[in-house]
Amino acid sequence: MTGPRYTPLIASLPDAVPFVGPEAIERTTGHRFAARLGANESLFGPSPVAIEAMAKAAADSWMYGDSQNHDLRHALASHHDVAAANIVIGGGIDGLLGSLVRLLVDPGDAVVTSKGAYPTFNFHVTGHGGVLHAAPYRDDHEDPRALIELARETRPKLIYIANPDNPMGTWHDAAKMQAMIDALPQDCLLILDEAYIEFAPHGTAPEFNTDDPRVIRMRTFSKAYGLAGARVGYAIGHSDLISSFNKVRNHFGMARASLAGALAALADQDWLEHVQTQVVTARDALADLARANQLSPISSATNFVTMDCGRDGGYAGRVVAQLAQRGVFVRMPFVAPQDRCIRVTTAPAQALKIFADALPDALKAAQTAS
Amino acid sequence: MTGPRYTPLIASLPDAVPFVGPEAIERTTGHRFAARLGANESLFGPSPVAIEAMAKAAADSWMYGDSQNHDLRHALASHHDVAAANIVIGGGIDGLLGSLVRLLVDPGDAVVTSKGAYPTFNFHVTGHGGVLHAAPYRDDHEDPRALIELARETRPKLIYIANPDNPMGTWHDAAKMQAMIDALPQDCLLILDEAYIEFAPHGTAPEFNTDDPRVIRMRTFSKAYGLAGARVGYAIGHSDLISSFNKVRNHFGMARASLAGALAALADQDWLEHVQTQVVTARDALADLARANQLSPISSATNFVTMDCGRDGGYAGRVVAQLAQRGVFVRMPFVAPQDRCIRVTTAPAQALKIFADALPDALKAAQTAS
Repeated sequence: MTGPRYTPLIASLPDAVPFVGPEAIERTTGHRFAARLGANESLFGPSPVAIEAMAKAAADSWMYGDSQNHDLRHALASHHDVAAANIVIGGGIDGLLGSLVRLLVDPGDAVVTSKGAYPTFNFHVTGHGGVLHAAPYRDDHEDPRALIELARETRPKLIYIANPDNPMGTWHDAAKMQAMIDALPQDCLLILDEAYIEFAPHGTAPEFNTDDPRVIRMRTFSKAYGLAGARVGYAIGHSDLISSFNKVRNHFGMARASLAGALAALADQDWLEHVQTQVVTARDALADLARANQLSPISSATNFVTMDCGRDGGYAGRVVAQLAQRGVFVRMPFVAPQDRCIRVTTAPAQALKIFADALPDALKAAQTAS
Repeated sequence: MTGPRYTPLIASLPDAVPFVGPEAIERTTGHRFAARLGANESLFGPSPVAIEAMAKAAADSWMYGDSQNHDLRHALASHHDVAAANIVIGGGIDGLLGSLVRLLVDPGDAVVTSKGAYPTFNFHVTGHGGVLHAAPYRDDHEDPRALIELARETRPKLIYIANPDNPMGTWHDAAKMQAMIDALPQDCLLILDEAYIEFAPHGTAPEFNTDDPRVIRMRTFSKAYGLAGARVGYAIGHSDLISSFNKVRNHFGMARASLAGALAALADQDWLEHVQTQVVTARDALADLARANQLSPISSATNFVTMDCGRDGGYAGRVVAQLAQRGVFVRMPFVAPQDRCIRVTTAPAQALKIFADALPDALKAAQTAS
């Protein structure tokens, strides 16, 4: 009995998964993590108003969500001072990246990113047969100039950059990002992933220019708004590009309670400020902790601190594993030379203390095992 | 300034949307619907236990959901007596259909469905460049024999059938469906969409045979479980086919509260039975109502009743519009000859009364306008 006839592209893809989640690790080890500091979720939580809105919306879950996501789109438009026609809502930035890649990338098409940048973007590109060209990081920063140079060589349909960056936490100011935009080859679309922008200093995000068809900005409720589990992201761009998502998106795909939660979270800017303040405090605490353990913290404009362990990826991997054995979930960058680091999410003091207590022994064990 | 370089396929697609949702209609008319009977949502609601589980999970929404959807997959495996490796969870059947089409359909590939069957499936097929071949309904039923004949001619990668059917509500028994499966051409994959199966008589669903690589079954929490707004569907099939979804699915795409809601809903089979009983009562009431207004109700194994208005699609369209003017949201089949009907979702007595009160005048107005 023969099986389904997959497309040649699908048949050629490996059975790879972009990330192993913390629950999957817990099931493998048989132990729950005591501190979940590996996925850059917000341990400060979403606004209580958002939780209440979601709880209230649960009873309405017999209804499909609004296929046009009207209320959230209009609230975001007002918040960012752009038109609702410039905004598309999706299932997190992950979902939007998948749709965007599908809109532009055919097998063989070039795509430019940084070596060690967001793996889920790569997953989507590879999944559509795109050919990734990656520029190295420079001094632990994504390198706009190198990306533009690579784009001039390879004429990609898409260029991806995150600002601030994940997994390093570094960032460029708005002037530098605007210079990158100004230098874009005419027919390349820049994806500016700003998942962590709410944690960055004022003046990190360039002005929105929705007349420019060469840039699409990605934002999310998963990080500063604390709603990773609700799966709500959005993209801001030229109205032609935004409306093209209608050709491929799952129109009734958004969960009703998630939309309600995001809408309430957006309205509670006081909570956002509270989280921003807490994250700055926790970043400082994590940096101090790193130094106290002879690790070098990298300056961060995100809700995590990446710490240089001073040796190779094998060593950092052992540190991650030893922390996991002690109930602490952290991650590390995927490729050299960034993989000499571990990446630790900010959190309230209680969770940081679990990390602080585990770190010295974990480092010692990782050194011994080498 | 040139714009993004879409793929030729995307550039060729119209800006069409599969459905206009009730909220969009409300915004156009400026009036809220008093009775929302057009989307086959469950007005009987989800289990109170599921609502509570979702409300409780709202506070956990700072965490991404489990990328392997482990708990729900295993609960479903136990419920259906199959292995967890035979189940994939997705964002409703809509989301799963999109992924499945992407796995198999390249531009030019043939796909078989029925003329007037689920438009969102067609949206996905067209969106991947597939070529739809449609067999007509026979006596308001999807026609397995005609679909198989068409498959022998066109050698499609996919054959779609819903049992029970939407939009007509009709169904075939398990023996007839098994005969269709047995007659499948070797390399065609049958999508058996069983979104409404919980409303059908015992003996409508054929036995699961997860050794058979030619069949994938689609189920959902959107209908009988009353969680349309949570966006949780699942597919059951051969483990090779199921694992291939990992190549394309959005691994962290499920909302955490939605997974919690579905898990709790599945556990409350008493509520499911309660809904099933209520739906039978409401179906009978809707059928009586139809007859009292000189419409012919079609026997239904779903949570809706499709009513033959006895004239053409233009007339049925006017009935739908007149009902909308009176605060009642219903839909109608998209193509002839099924489009002589309107489709009305079952509901508690109060909502049915709104429909009952509006129907005579709506029919009168629709007749006058002709």
